[in-house]
Amino acid sequence: MKIIDCHAHMAVPTQLPVFKSALLSHRGAHGLRAPVPTDDDIHAALNRVEMAPYGHLECLDRAGVDMQVLSPRPFQMMHSEEPKKLVHAYVRAANDMLARQVALYPDRFVGVCGLPQTGASPVEEALPELERCVGEHGFRGCLINPDPFENSGRKAPPMGDRYWYPLYEKLVELDVVGHIHSTASRHPEREPYSLHFINEETTAVYGLCNSRVLDDFPDLKILVSHGGGAIPFQLGRFQASSVRRGDKPGATFADKLKRLWFDTVLYSPEAIELLVRVVGPDRCLFGAEMPGVGSSVNPETGETFDTLLPHIRALQGITEEERSAILGGTAARLFRIEV
Amino acid sequence: MKIIDCHAHMAVPTQLPVFKSALLSHRGAHGLRAPVPTDDDIHAALNRVEMAPYGHLECLDRAGVDMQVLSPRPFQMMHSEEPKKLVHAYVRAANDMLARQVALYPDRFVGVCGLPQTGASPVEEALPELERCVGEHGFRGCLINPDPFENSGRKAPPMGDRYWYPLYEKLVELDVVGHIHSTASRHPEREPYSLHFINEETTAVYGLCNSRVLDDFPDLKILVSHGGGAIPFQLGRFQASSVRRGDKPGATFADKLKRLWFDTVLYSPEAIELLVRVVGPDRCLFGAEMPGVGSSVNPETGETFDTLLPHIRALQGITEEERSAILGGTAARLFRIEV
Amino acid sequence: MKIIDCHAHMAVPTQLPVFKSALLSHRGAHGLRAPVPTDDDIHAALNRVEMAPYGHLECLDRAGVDMQVLSPRPFQMMHSEEPKKLVHAYVRAANDMLARQVALYPDRFVGVCGLPQTGASPVEEALPELERCVGEHGFRGCLINPDPFENSGRKAPPMGDRYWYPLYEKLVELDVVGHIHSTASRHPEREPYSLHFINEETTAVYGLCNSRVLDDFPDLKILVSHGGGAIPFQLGRFQASSVRRGDKPGATFADKLKRLWFDTVLYSPEAIELLVRVVGPDRCLFGAEMPGVGSSVNPETGETFDTLLPHIRALQGITEEERSAILGGTAARLFRIEV
Amino acid sequence: MKIIDCHAHMAVPTQLPVFKSALLSHRGAHGLRAPVPTDDDIHAALNRVEMAPYGHLECLDRAGVDMQVLSPRPFQMMHSEEPKKLVHAYVRAANDMLARQVALYPDRFVGVCGLPQTGASPVEEALPELERCVGEHGFRGCLINPDPFENSGRKAPPMGDRYWYPLYEKLVELDVVGHIHSTASRHPEREPYSLHFINEETTAVYGLCNSRVLDDFPDLKILVSHGGGAIPFQLGRFQASSVRRGDKPGATFADKLKRLWFDTVLYSPEAIELLVRVVGPDRCLFGAEMPGVGSSVNPETGETFDTLLPHIRALQGITEEERSAILGGTAARLFRIEV
Amino acid sequence: MKIIDCHAHMAVPTQLPVFKSALLSHRGAHGLRAPVPTDDDIHAALNRVEMAPYGHLECLDRAGVDMQVLSPRPFQMMHSEEPKKLVHAYVRAANDMLARQVALYPDRFVGVCGLPQTGASPVEEALPELERCVGEHGFRGCLINPDPFENSGRKAPPMGDRYWYPLYEKLVELDVVGHIHSTASRHPEREPYSLHFINEETTAVYGLCNSRVLDDFPDLKILVSHGGGAIPFQLGRFQASSVRRGDKPGATFADKLKRLWFDTVLYSPEAIELLVRVVGPDRCLFGAEMPGVGSSVNPETGETFDTLLPHIRALQGITEEERSAILGGTAARLFRIEV
Amino acid sequence: MKIIDCHAHMAVPTQLPVFKSALLSHRGAHGLRAPVPTDDDIHAALNRVEMAPYGHLECLDRAGVDMQVLSPRPFQMMHSEEPKKLVHAYVRAANDMLARQVALYPDRFVGVCGLPQTGASPVEEALPELERCVGEHGFRGCLINPDPFENSGRKAPPMGDRYWYPLYEKLVELDVVGHIHSTASRHPEREPYSLHFINEETTAVYGLCNSRVLDDFPDLKILVSHGGGAIPFQLGRFQASSVRRGDKPGATFADKLKRLWFDTVLYSPEAIELLVRVVGPDRCLFGAEMPGVGSSVNPETGETFDTLLPHIRALQGITEEERSAILGGTAARLFRIEV
Repeated sequence: MKIIDCHAHMAVPTQLPVFKSALLSHRGAHGLRAPVPTDDDIHAALNRVEMAPYGHLECLDRAGVDMQVLSPRPFQMMHSEEPKKLVHAYVRAANDMLARQVALYPDRFVGVCGLPQTGASPVEEALPELERCVGEHGFRGCLINPDPFENSGRKAPPMGDRYWYPLYEKLVELDVVGHIHSTASRHPEREPYSLHFINEETTAVYGLCNSRVLDDFPDLKILVSHGGGAIPFQLGRFQASSVRRGDKPGATFADKLKRLWFDTVLYSPEAIELLVRVVGPDRCLFGAEMPGVGSSVNPETGETFDTLLPHIRALQGITEEERSAILGGTAARLFRIEV
Repeated sequence: MKIIDCHAHMAVPTQLPVFKSALLSHRGAHGLRAPVPTDDDIHAALNRVEMAPYGHLECLDRAGVDMQVLSPRPFQMMHSEEPKKLVHAYVRAANDMLARQVALYPDRFVGVCGLPQTGASPVEEALPELERCVGEHGFRGCLINPDPFENSGRKAPPMGDRYWYPLYEKLVELDVVGHIHSTASRHPEREPYSLHFINEETTAVYGLCNSRVLDDFPDLKILVSHGGGAIPFQLGRFQASSVRRGDKPGATFADKLKRLWFDTVLYSPEAIELLVRVVGPDRCLFGAEMPGVGSSVNPETGETFDTLLPHIRALQGITEEERSAILGGTAARLFRIEV
Repeated sequence: MKIIDCHAHMAVPTQLPVFKSALLSHRGAHGLRAPVPTDDDIHAALNRVEMAPYGHLECLDRAGVDMQVLSPRPFQMMHSEEPKKLVHAYVRAANDMLARQVALYPDRFVGVCGLPQTGASPVEEALPELERCVGEHGFRGCLINPDPFENSGRKAPPMGDRYWYPLYEKLVELDVVGHIHSTASRHPEREPYSLHFINEETTAVYGLCNSRVLDDFPDLKILVSHGGGAIPFQLGRFQASSVRRGDKPGATFADKLKRLWFDTVLYSPEAIELLVRVVGPDRCLFGAEMPGVGSSVNPETGETFDTLLPHIRALQGITEEERSAILGGTAARLFRIEV
Repeated sequence: MKIIDCHAHMAVPTQLPVFKSALLSHRGAHGLRAPVPTDDDIHAALNRVEMAPYGHLECLDRAGVDMQVLSPRPFQMMHSEEPKKLVHAYVRAANDMLARQVALYPDRFVGVCGLPQTGASPVEEALPELERCVGEHGFRGCLINPDPFENSGRKAPPMGDRYWYPLYEKLVELDVVGHIHSTASRHPEREPYSLHFINEETTAVYGLCNSRVLDDFPDLKILVSHGGGAIPFQLGRFQASSVRRGDKPGATFADKLKRLWFDTVLYSPEAIELLVRVVGPDRCLFGAEMPGVGSSVNPETGETFDTLLPHIRALQGITEEERSAILGGTAARLFRIEV
Repeated sequence: MKIIDCHAHMAVPTQLPVFKSALLSHRGAHGLRAPVPTDDDIHAALNRVEMAPYGHLECLDRAGVDMQVLSPRPFQMMHSEEPKKLVHAYVRAANDMLARQVALYPDRFVGVCGLPQTGASPVEEALPELERCVGEHGFRGCLINPDPFENSGRKAPPMGDRYWYPLYEKLVELDVVGHIHSTASRHPEREPYSLHFINEETTAVYGLCNSRVLDDFPDLKILVSHGGGAIPFQLGRFQASSVRRGDKPGATFADKLKRLWFDTVLYSPEAIELLVRVVGPDRCLFGAEMPGVGSSVNPETGETFDTLLPHIRALQGITEEERSAILGGTAARLFRIEV
Repeated sequence: MKIIDCHAHMAVPTQLPVFKSALLSHRGAHGLRAPVPTDDDIHAALNRVEMAPYGHLECLDRAGVDMQVLSPRPFQMMHSEEPKKLVHAYVRAANDMLARQVALYPDRFVGVCGLPQTGASPVEEALPELERCVGEHGFRGCLINPDPFENSGRKAPPMGDRYWYPLYEKLVELDVVGHIHSTASRHPEREPYSLHFINEETTAVYGLCNSRVLDDFPDLKILVSHGGGAIPFQLGRFQASSVRRGDKPGATFADKLKRLWFDTVLYSPEAIELLVRVVGPDRCLFGAEMPGVGSSVNPETGETFDTLLPHIRALQGITEEERSAILGGTAARLFRIEV
């Protein structure tokens, strides 16, 4: 059995932020051609010590993680920048660099692409890039940003709205995973991107479970980041409303919640435990987002916060088969990883 | 020992929504004088079967709750309406009706006022009403809305901003509790008010724990609704960032979190359990918001979702003293209720 | 002969403003289902002493009015609220309550519905409710709000604009009356709704008489509230312009004015006299809007200001047949009331 | 006794619109120096046949008017244009040309200046021009525009607001008349300026009579154009509200109305008659705004609509002394004209 | 050979600015009918001493100019005013007055019309007026304003955008010249219209030479005002970029530049010399815009600045044939003037 | 004598765009601490082949340039990004890296800082950084961006406005040079930054020469980039206006122009020649902005476009002393470079 971290972001070769910086300086006046890093540049990125005390690859080895599902760093995808061709150019460049990384380490990494979503445009405009990444790069999913306006005040349609249906159809057609993960925040003083992730996941899960989406797309594979935001903790509240308005058993908010999947990027044993109890072990995928926000060392344990495998191994009240599914089995199935 | 529900909203005499409706129709052209319900009207409201299968008073009796801390219904406070004199008129009327209710049942109810907050104005404008309610009505706290723009897109300052300091000073000066609770939502399709509560509590706790507020006001008594939104569940994430940026032990995010208080309005035993484990039993106050969103009957249990006392009585790993503090002791202390 | 007051608004059961208040608090998050008052609630409303020294029914009896044409209270119709489904829900609820009132007193009341107009949408969206009220409730007309933006600064198309043609067509098709009456005002300090009524009637009559509408819809039955705003008093001005630009006799502003109908809701004998002289007795319908703004007692007469029947009975220079037409004959014909 | 037309606008020498056109083309880039017409240019303007069948002076002679109170054409004052220095430049130029006209015919004309009002600025900015015109040119009043935003959607403070107090103070200090008269309309399709005049006069009178202005400035001399808009015709409505809210006899809406003055620019005998009955003969000043909008020939009479003297001479129910006051006596007193 | 000044604006009869002033005062409420000057009025305009020390015709005679290509004064065309029917009315009036002028002096003047461009509308809306002027008046070109928003902050599409293609097609179809010339500036403090001309010409030439327009319309005849703004002086910069991005010889920025035509309205010998050297003598047309901004007397020479013929006659390094082409030959060919 | 290129931008170590990209992703949520490149990183940047066929230092050596005045790359300064703390952080980081570069090569480079200008704030907020750079780093000037809104539509005050006076005062006080150079453009389709530079220089020079700035600050040292935009080529036009409005000899537009300094970054011999003739050799400073936009190879010459020294050496009509001043003497004096 392979241990698979289902939620991680690629080690970024320097060329990518330099390209981003240039795009935002000239806004397309120099053209949109992306730089191409060498293999050495990519290796260097994977070994750079930056967010964690070790390089990316060493983190995996030390933690005992066999494979990772990698996607571009969400908070850098600048979905709210204009003109929108900048978004398309940057996201494509990020996906292409990720594809290089995956190609260099096919046994360690599986790719999930970013989408060039722009709030004022139909979601259809992002689909060619999804098809390209699946077709050309063999990626197995995409990030979905519920708020392409990036907390600027304008509101995107809720996830249950017809606006999103073309994306859901395409995901089903391609049999790939949609991973809910917002990007940046235009009001960081109030709500930095890391907090905005949580609020947007909360809102996205609400939108999905409070609509017909999961009925209309029974085969849709949606993975929610960071354990679902606030929802598993606040489930009683939304279930009470669902019952009040007459939702039938099997079709309540809590029932729909259990048709989604959740990663364990939560960084505390209490939270992982609650998640597994509330949504069920078959709906949880091990994820540590390593290296990332959780890679600082917890002074109480001497380990990084993202050292989550011990918590999962220590979970009570689940079978070993369920544990194995959490650690990699379910991820292998959803992302079609041969193990 | 008395069982005290620290988070509940008043039974509304019909005169109040009729007044609100009139204000929003004439916008002040008929003047701002509020209707005065009779004692019978108030009794009728307290016995009306509306959100729960029983009237307000019967709910308390059946649940075994001795006292309740009552405030106006937050989602009706219309902080974002214009001109702002409407907000002042409505909130004052609501507070005055609440005062009548408290006066009729001094052994059952303690008052917490609403504030006439309006996003584009300094928070100082809301303070005279706070002083009036404490001075004239003997109230013991107020609701604090972190988002007086009511999810309309414009952003209020974060709770750590100097904008809020005059309110914090006044709370300390009057020795009353500030209860974090947002109001309505202008974008209900995406984020209905009930969901907006959760996201705003998350953002508010983040703002308080990520600033100097709790250092600058060591005596500030802040109670956070609904178990703190997403924060206790997501604590690892914010603690990891806190450690990363070098916050010293005793001054980390998690340390500050434990200087706030939280109510147990969570409606699932898993969530209450996590809350108590994460923030500590001394920081939890029994709250059921009864009758309210949780008053529908859970078909799995045959009880209303807001039947929370059994969960608290069943909590493992706390002392009986701690349990007693949760059930009423801490509330009595914070709200200065003689028991 | 029956005395018919052609312009009055229904006595509002408490459920309606409570429903409105709730809609504006949750903005649809609780659903849009309207409350259903009992017959007793409706009787209570009709006997409630509120705007006048007597209840609604007693007012009629004392004044000697046989029948009234009733519509919802215009200033409460909240056409400018968002999302627009709130407007549709509220207006439908108001019309249904009115239908109940009419059904309880078929010999006293005739129904005229409100329309769910919303300024940013085509007027077509309001027509299904008109058809429903005429078809299901047997109503004989509708209110038309020339300013669904409710004095918020944005401008609706003038009444002569093609925007309104689908409404005019439907009125002709159904053979019902369109009663010009604006709703609330968003700038009450400058222009409260009661004043805004007058300015909007002035503007509406101007728009109709300065366009081809009355030529294009020769059978259109438009009744203008409050004696036509300023127009009968200021007619010379607009007639002078009409002549200046070459309008032919029979097609001048004054000629078109006499193809509309006007109610006598004016509250001074001088004004009623001028109205009848300027537009002709055949174009005037007795209206007192009772009880309403005019139901306060004039200290100079000891009667309420809306005691208009004596003024009409005292009019000089008209025949008794004309007087009878004013008092009820023309209303009976326009609203198809059997007498 | 002299017949004085208290409301008329100057015959415009061609240089003024040419200057306006230039200002609006270069927006100040060519400087702001106004052209200076010759005496011949001014005479030519006064004899030009334009709005009436005769030149300006001939109109007076034919009508039997001895003197006129002249002001700039209001609808050309472009108060809403930017940058505001254009407004100041144009209004000053217009006032200076008017001063030339008055100086050439001191026995026929009395001057009333326009004010360089701009909605986004304090009214104080218009006062130096008022002082200059009174001091240098001997003018006896000014036009007051209640809507310097010119119907663009933004709202000026109501006339009862403190915003206007510096102007009222200055009028009293200088002992000159304030003549209410709005200017252009930015939405002519819905509300052309001629109609906007009426609505703004209605709103202005409402604002004055519904506030403390006339108490705070007992010596203020306010003359309202066009017979007061809709107010005299709709007085009952506003008086009923005034009584309802408890205004004491002597301080009701109608009482305050009789502390203003009104001109008779109404163009129909019914309207003039109503005006005199409602506000009293001592509050009416003959005005014909000649030549102007009323100077087209009424085919029913063969006279121009602005042939108002016969109507005033035919008024019933007033004394000859009152008639004389209307025709010129009151104007002479208010404008301090020696007769 | 005839000396032809290819860039001049008509002497404006007073009726035109008076009409403009009226349009901007009543915004269409008085209708849109333009005044018709008499022949005497037009002669007077042509002899009026205004911008130059002599009248228009005398300027030509003194300078030795045989013919002029005349268009309306650009800075007065008010393309950014609303409603847009004002723009259409004014531009049509200006074109019609120009046609009168041309008809009176067919041997001296050739007409080029203004277009009723309005930024928020498709350029197609301006084409009927172009067709009318060419068909009815025999005009030989039109002005093209690259910025119909008149420097108000909103941006028009660049000249290489498909937005403009219908205009280019029509110019080719009618075989007439498009003369690049912007109109007014809404921010004169920063950028008065005279400076805005230069910046907009710079931007327009950049847009044309940096796109496919000149490939897609090989027969398009575009004449750029004032020597092309900054471009001939700054050519190296844009040519360096063009080469850098790989444009092939014959298709570089500089190559495309030489497919446009430029007038010599530059007012200094150094500038004219540079222009001719950079774009070639076959691409230069004598233009003096006389009388105009250059008609003030240069104290260093005692001649007006627009005395440009001597500079052209003194040009070194060109053949006499080339000089003759500059002075009139090329203009005759482009504008189809028989000489 | 030393050859000094007065206008060049630093070779950027990769850390700077990476930092910029990060700032724009997290908008300050990760803090504002800038990366510190090693000396090797800086050497690498100076030797990187990027815009020119050679590295930065090699360019200088090959061209025969002894020293360069270096500033940050203007188009990357992101003055219009929000919150403004991002601008302050980035500009400070860029200045500090530049200081490192200058410190490593004190004989080759002289520093000129960028300013953290943000359009909506007073220019005073940028002055502490200027003082810091002069005081700590020994810089000799700063860039001045006339358009900190970066072509987004909002307009900055013109350069003659009092808004800029605190900056001018500080420049004089510190005796350093202000180098006019705008930054990015938010509308690159219409006006890419390279073109926007030219238009803004044109506008800036106009603003300075059309105001009292050069009188109020006789010691102000302003250097204009790229030969002054369009102004030297279009001087006749502005001089004609200046004379027309009566500016006296010595105080005309052309006179003021000669109180500014201009660099020769023009890339064509005709343009350099015109510049020197029009503003005088004593006002021209050799500048090549090398490597930069002009570093592509001109296929007609086989040299890069920025090979400007031969053009200057070939200039006719100036003395050798003047030539020497252009090549370095004047720069040495203005920037206080010991030679």
